Amino acid sequence: MSAEVGTVYIGNKPAINYVMATILQINQGINRIVLKARGRAISRAVDVAEIARQKYLPGRLEVRDIRIGTEEILAENGTRRDVSVIEIELEYKPEQ
Amino acid sequence: MSAEVGTVYIGNKPAINYVMATILQINQGINRIVLKARGRAISRAVDVAEIARQKYLPGRLEVRDIRIGTEEILAENGTRRDVSVIEIELEYKPEQ
Repeated sequence: MSAEVGTVYIGNKPAINYVMATILQINQGINRIVLKARGRAISRAVDVAEIARQKYLPGRLEVRDIRIGTEEILAENGTRRDVSVIEIELEYKPEQ
Repeated sequence: MSAEVGTVYIGNKPAINYVMATILQINQGINRIVLKARGRAISRAVDVAEIARQKYLPGRLEVRDIRIGTEEILAENGTRRDVSVIEIELEYKPEQ
């Protein structure tokens, strides 16, 4: 089992794109994937985890940890504002 | 310390409304609050947890657990579709 951790940054594309990015990494032998999202993309990160877990890898992908936090982002006009972030850590359990 | 668990359902109103609902319950002596949201409101649930934790009760509100899942909802036209859900469990630590 690989100790490597992959990251998938969740943006504004359809959830299925990020599901595929997750499965691609797993197919490359990376068994731990962290989905990272901020702001409105947080809902999509949960969709990605659920679709990957339930539709594509049922029984073989577990949620290991979910962390939330706040980051300060600098807008183009120079103002700062806080944005919520989430990290969903998934672990793939290969078939025995 | 109360063993009672309060619930705040996160909908489409501004996050601050749900922050206030959370703090109201804490002021009533309920030390454990579960924020529940589904679909796009999931991002807002994270905002509510972060605003309550960092701005209103810094150092006194902890994230105990975060759970994600999928629920099937029945649309008005009779079709069913899956929607992601989140539960964020918060615990208030009263001042000693």
